[in-house]
This record gives sequence, structure tokens and C-alpha cells, in this order.
Amino acid sequence: MTGRSADPASDTAMNMDMERFGPITRAVARFGAEWRWEDIPEAVRHEARRSLLNYFAVALAGSADPTVDIAASVFARFSAGQQATVIGRGQRMDMLNAASLNAMMANVFDFDDTHPATIIHPTAPVAPAAFALAQVQPVSGARLLHAFILGAEIECRMGNALTLGHYAHGWHITSTCGVFGAAIASASLLGLDARRTAWALAGAGNQTGGLVETLGTMSKSISVGNTARNGLLSALLAREGLAGPDQPIEGARGVLNVLSATPAPEKLIDGLGQRWELRTNTYKPYPCGVVLNPVIEAVLALRERMALADRDPARVARVELTGHPLLRQRTDRPGVRNGRESQVSAQHAIAVCLLHGRAGLAEFSDQAVAAPRAHALDMRLRFHDDDAYTVDAVHIRITLDDGRDFEHRIDAARGSSGNPLTDADLENKLHELCAYGGSGCDAEAIIGGIWELETLTDAGKLMARVAGTPRTEIRTG
Amino acid sequence: MTGRSADPASDTAMNMDMERFGPITRAVARFGAEWRWEDIPEAVRHEARRSLLNYFAVALAGSADPTVDIAASVFARFSAGQQATVIGRGQRMDMLNAASLNAMMANVFDFDDTHPATIIHPTAPVAPAAFALAQVQPVSGARLLHAFILGAEIECRMGNALTLGHYAHGWHITSTCGVFGAAIASASLLGLDARRTAWALAGAGNQTGGLVETLGTMSKSISVGNTARNGLLSALLAREGLAGPDQPIEGARGVLNVLSATPAPEKLIDGLGQRWELRTNTYKPYPCGVVLNPVIEAVLALRERMALADRDPARVARVELTGHPLLRQRTDRPGVRNGRESQVSAQHAIAVCLLHGRAGLAEFSDQAVAAPRAHALDMRLRFHDDDAYTVDAVHIRITLDDGRDFEHRIDAARGSSGNPLTDADLENKLHELCAYGGSGCDAEAIIGGIWELETLTDAGKLMARVAGTPRTEIRTG
Repeated sequence: MTGRSADPASDTAMNMDMERFGPITRAVARFGAEWRWEDIPEAVRHEARRSLLNYFAVALAGSADPTVDIAASVFARFSAGQQATVIGRGQRMDMLNAASLNAMMANVFDFDDTHPATIIHPTAPVAPAAFALAQVQPVSGARLLHAFILGAEIECRMGNALTLGHYAHGWHITSTCGVFGAAIASASLLGLDARRTAWALAGAGNQTGGLVETLGTMSKSISVGNTARNGLLSALLAREGLAGPDQPIEGARGVLNVLSATPAPEKLIDGLGQRWELRTNTYKPYPCGVVLNPVIEAVLALRERMALADRDPARVARVELTGHPLLRQRTDRPGVRNGRESQVSAQHAIAVCLLHGRAGLAEFSDQAVAAPRAHALDMRLRFHDDDAYTVDAVHIRITLDDGRDFEHRIDAARGSSGNPLTDADLENKLHELCAYGGSGCDAEAIIGGIWELETLTDAGKLMARVAGTPRTEIRTG
Repeated sequence: MTGRSADPASDTAMNMDMERFGPITRAVARFGAEWRWEDIPEAVRHEARRSLLNYFAVALAGSADPTVDIAASVFARFSAGQQATVIGRGQRMDMLNAASLNAMMANVFDFDDTHPATIIHPTAPVAPAAFALAQVQPVSGARLLHAFILGAEIECRMGNALTLGHYAHGWHITSTCGVFGAAIASASLLGLDARRTAWALAGAGNQTGGLVETLGTMSKSISVGNTARNGLLSALLAREGLAGPDQPIEGARGVLNVLSATPAPEKLIDGLGQRWELRTNTYKPYPCGVVLNPVIEAVLALRERMALADRDPARVARVELTGHPLLRQRTDRPGVRNGRESQVSAQHAIAVCLLHGRAGLAEFSDQAVAAPRAHALDMRLRFHDDDAYTVDAVHIRITLDDGRDFEHRIDAARGSSGNPLTDADLENKLHELCAYGGSGCDAEAIIGGIWELETLTDAGKLMARVAGTPRTEIRTG
């Protein structure tokens, strides 16, 4: 491993001190404590900036969500001081509560980033912990970016090591893995040595959890918020000497064996520092299940070729969708009852795209679902499974009531690994979501701050640009 | 189910509202929200008082533990106000932090109560949440006892429903189940209806966790503290409307299916309100693994028959222990290095009992392990497995260097289900541990308050009696 301290004597002392730990725990802790900024490639740093841009966009959008309102009203009663910014709400809390709320709001619409190999949303757990800490203990933008990258890397690798069965079994993988990312990022910013970083990992492991059963409900946000809060707390406790076991990750009753039936510990460390998981991060153009991306893109393209009068779902006689079987399995959902359900409904997505020519948060809200024409396609959509299609591809044929056909095919939807959102796309997303959330923040100032993050001497000051104005309290708690 | 409200109209409305929930979630939530104090037998109430007496004893002993010192130094920075008492430390924090610390200290020595069927320590997660809430929102002693009983009942039944494989797989069952007990007790004290109690269960389920790998390290206390904190928080969030899924417990990706390979959901509800798990609660006479109880009792009895000069482990030629195979598997541990290891070492337990004629926390401390004669038996102990023995029984033969033999047999050790500690034993335990912890609290005043808890108009006031005096800060955080 490169990236260690250059002092061989201190390396030797540390090596002896670290011998007690299991090899996986040791390697992960050393990576978190010792991997150097200089040894992180520019391409990884740039992907980190893109991740943070997307993070602030989705957090600003989610800052006014009712789930966040409720949590903020309760957390405000348990906040010791106002050191850290709660995004978009003109509100400050202590760093643990702010970290939790900012993680919740970034993920509340599932509009945040996606690590394709695991379906982890990498940034929502890690960035809030790092920025909250940076507001209490000032650090440079480069140090913050460094810590964020190390944290996100371990988070995604934890997901790889737990393997696909972990999520399928019912663990909400962003919650279960996010806490490790937040712990590593926090440990890095606190300057913990490898031993204490290992203790932070143990504290994170002893707090990991979160159930898929809660998805689609407000309760989901509790475990997502806990990732940032508890990862940060684990690092703070480790700094004061709260020691953990020698093999928190690979032990017989440690994280991997308990939370996975088929753990692959080597995936945590193989190529660590050479292959960067964060490089594969993807960003959603639409606030929907990712399998709907090509459908939405196809309908928006078709609509451009249709006359104004043809763009009415009530005039559609039949829609045929050909795609990967997962498309049907996940999104054949007529009769949705609320905005959250509409995010995974092909019937709804096609109807609102035809109607409005856009697919933003407003088109997948409770209000959009309540509009009568949103349900026009509920009985008129047929799926054709075809394994030759990837989940990023689709063919759509819309037949109008006068018999005319419109067809379109998408091979790699925008936002997929093969057709990633550009930097400009991400800037536009931030503009749009900043406006949607109604925080009154200056989108350009935020964008500028993120692109130049590496040059800031006090990274925490960026949070002033996403603070927003106070919300009308909806509850008194 | 008896114990519901007497108003049939409101019952009907509530029944319809509750139809959406799965049958297990529904029954558990209704039990927590609606089971009446009048329908709890006096024997259960008395066992609850005994549990609380044991709880305050072990919490007062643990209040000065270094793990608690570290956690308290960090938590103090994140405490919003001083509404709730941190036991034995002359310190007050907000109710979430106080609940967490009080749970930690009650369990830190594993000297707390044991639910025999699951090995859950039932009181440490539930009582701290209930008492912290009672200091913020005054309730009568009867209401507090009522809430504690409902919480502990669901906690233990959750353990039954997760079945024995859950713990064996590596889940720290006190942590994983405790959060449900704290949630139910808190929901009860907050007066939540059944629907909101179900949401509190969902919030608890989305925060359940804790790994056996951390046992024997400071890290263990993080998840134990979280049980009380997060159970209480789940109820507070549910009160404000943070909704959960319909089947948090029994759903395909809910608590039981995700955390157990062989879930037995019916064990949560069979005989609910008729058979009380809390009635089976047991209390340790010694701060050791429970399988050592008969060994310690046998040595203490033998020692009474030995001359002063014979009571020296250095004079022992051989010790033979005949007992259940678990005794050997769990406690054949020569060469222990610290107090925590000594708590599960037969070699150490026999040596210190011979030397000192007692087996309290001082005899299982780091200092006791450091004494040279504590290791005199490390190479002189032989185990004989015999399945005819229960884990509460043992036969011991000690042979001195002059050939004389001393033998004793225990059939049902004190503290076991067959030979429970008496009320007077528990009072003595509180006296002893209160002195051990050095808080300066008046043991008699605490004991009196617990026995008369049901008559108090403000249960939270009992906490003034366990507050203690400020500790010298060992850290600055």
C-alpha cells in the first residue's frame, strides 16, 4: 500500500500496535487513517465533487419534506447548541443532529446518487457527517474532500463485501454500509490514528442496521439519518479511547458474518487505493426508480415529435414497452395512490411525461397523482420482457386512438454508467432542485463553492451557502 | 384479549384504523397501547419492582466504569439541557443521553438481570427510557411500573420470536430486542394510540442492531445505550406522526425475517397478557457468567469448612469440577489478563473465592487479576463433563498438597430459576453495589422508593435518590 507516512520508525511502532487487529480491519483502518491526499487521482477527486454537487441538490429539494419537518421538530428539542447547518431550513443544530437531518433530506426522495454494483446511495451518509464536523473543527476543502473520498470508498466496498444477498435478504444497504463511510470520513477529519480508526469501525459495526421493509415510508429516514450521526459519534467515542474488538469486520460474530450469508471480505481490500468505487458513482436525472430512466427519456423524445393535441394520455389507445424483465417487475404499477408510489410506476411516468413534457419532483408528487389524467394509462400499458435489453435500455410504442403509432428506442439512458450526467447536467439539477425546495439559496454560489472546494481554507463555510431561510414551523413538538 | 378500553364505539374506530397492520404488529401495538394496569397480576408487578431494584444496584455499581466515563464526556457535549438524571454521577443531561448512559452503566458488568429463555438482560434497555421520560413528563409510579412491564414483556417475547439461533448467529440479543422494549414503554408513557405505537415499533425495528463480536469490549456499551435512546426516540417521532410500514415485525423484509433464520412470530403474541415473561426474570448473585454461579457457591461453602491456613490457592494440588458441558466450554479459561475476562474464568473464580471468601466486583477487577495468587489454579483445574447436571448444578473436589480432600455439591445455585434471590438478597445487592460505585447515594432511601413505587404520584422524583455526587472529570473531551 502506498500513501503511508514517510517515517519508517513510526511505521514500525504503528505496525506492532496494529498487529492485534484482524487483517481486514487493519487494512481498512490504515486506509482511513493513512491514505494520502496526494495518492488520490484527480478523476476520483472530480467524481467526489460531482457527488457533492448532486448531494446538495437533492438535500435542498428534500429539506422541506414532511418527514424532515417531523424529525427536525423532535431533534431541535435535543440539540446542544447551533454549531452546524441544517440544509435549506435556516436552522442550526449540534453536529450530530444536523448530520442526521442532512442525511435524511438528501435521501428522502431516493433522488440521490447510486453506486451501481450495490445500489448504495453513497453520499447521503458520508457528506453530512464530514461537513457537520468541518463546521465545528475547521478544515481545508482538500481535507474535507479527502475524508469524503475515503469514507465513500469504504462504504461502497463494505457493500461489495456483504455481497448482493445482503440487500436481497432485507437489509437497507445504504443504511447498513453508510455508517462505516461516515465513521471513516469522521475519523479522517479528526486525525485518528489507525488503532482508533479501527475502534470507530467497531462502533459503527455495533450500530449498523436498517430494514428494506421501511422503504416507501417515513420510517426509512430514521436509519438513513443514523448513518451520519452514528458514524460521526463512533469516531468521537473512539478518539476518547472507547475501544472495540480486534476483528469487528471479519470476526466470527462481526459485521460481515452476521449481516451476510455469503461474505466476501477480500472485496474490502483488493485493489484498495488502486480501483476506486467512487469513480463508478451515478446520478439520477429523474426522481424515480432507475429502471424508469430509459422509459422517461423515450417518452420525452417521442413527445417532441407529437403535435400538441396528441400529447394527451386520454387519447392513447395502447402503450407497449419492451425491456429487461426487471422493468416490468419493478414498475408495472397501475393505480398509484401517492407520490412515493408514483416514483416506481411506469403507467404514471409515461402519463405525466406525455402531459407535462418533464419528469421532475412535481410530476411525482401527491398532487400529480391526484390529477385525473395521470391515471389514463393505468389499463393501457403492456410490458414485453426481453433479456437482450439492459436495464438502461427500452423500446416504446405509443398508439393513439386514431391508429397512429409513435416509436422510440433508448440504448443507454442518461444517468446510466454508459451515459453519465455531465457536469452541466448536475449544475442544472442543482438549479432545479434548489428552486423546488424553496430554501431561497443562491444555486450559482453553491455550484461555484463545490467546484472550487479544494481551494477553500475553511470548507465548513460552504454550509452558509446552503443554509436557506427559516421554515414556518408546522409542528410544536 | 382483555385489558382494552371499555368504549365499544372507539374500539370499532380503532379496529378499522388498525386493519392495515399485520396481525403480529397489530397485536403487539394494541398490547402496548391498551393493556390495562388493572389486568397485570400483583406477582408480575412485584417482579417488576425486583427488576428495578436490581437495575439501580447494577447501575450504581457501573456508574464509575471507564466506559461510562468516556461516553458521558462525549455525550455531555451533545446534551440539550439537564432534564434527566445520569445515575450515580451527580450529572444531568437531556433524556435521550441520560437514557443511553443509564442503560450502559446497568449492563457494563453483565451483572444485570437475565431472562433465562433468551439470555436477554431485560431491564437495562427499558427502565432508563421510562425513568428519563418520567423526569420530563411527570407520571405516577403505577404508570411507570405499568409501562416498564409492557416494555419488558415485548422485549423478551421479541427474543423468543427471534429464537435461539438469533443470538448464536452473532446478534447481541439485549441490544437487538431492548430497543423494542424501550419503544413500547415510552409509547405507553406518552399515551400513544395503537397506530402510533405500531410506528414506534417500526422506528425501533429500523434501529435494531448490536453484535456479539463486541462483547468483552467497551464498544458493547454503544449498542446497549442505543436501545434506551433509540426506543425512546422512536416513540417521540411516532407521536409527531413519523409513520412506518404496515408490517415492520412480520413483513417479508421486517424484523423477524431479516434477523432470524427461524422466526417464530407466534411467540410474540401467544398467551400475551396471560403468561408473563417478566415473571421468569432472574438476578445474579455474582458478577460472572451465570454458569459460574454454582461453582462460586460451592467454593464459598467449602471454604467455611476449611481452616484459615488451608484457604490458600497456592496450597491446592488439584481441583476437579463436574458439571454441564457448557460450564467447561464457557469458563475453562486459565491465564486471564483483565477483570472482564476473569468474569468467565473458573480458574480465577475458584482462586479468589478461596482467598477472599467473597465474589463481588472487587474480586473480578483488573486489580484482582493482577494479584499473583489469583493465578495459582491456572494449571490445576480439571473439568468433567456430565450431561446429568443442569447449568445450575456442580460438584467440586479440592485436594490440598497434603492429600486432604474437600467436596461439595450444588443442585440449584442461588440466582437460578429454581433458587431465586430473595427480596432481602436483592436489597443486600443494592447496598453492596451502591457502596462499590462510590456515588454516595443512600441505599435505604432507594430501596424504600422502589418498594413503594406504585404509591408515588411522581415517579421521576425517585431519580433524585440515585443521582449521586459529581465525579472528577477524567477527560476534557
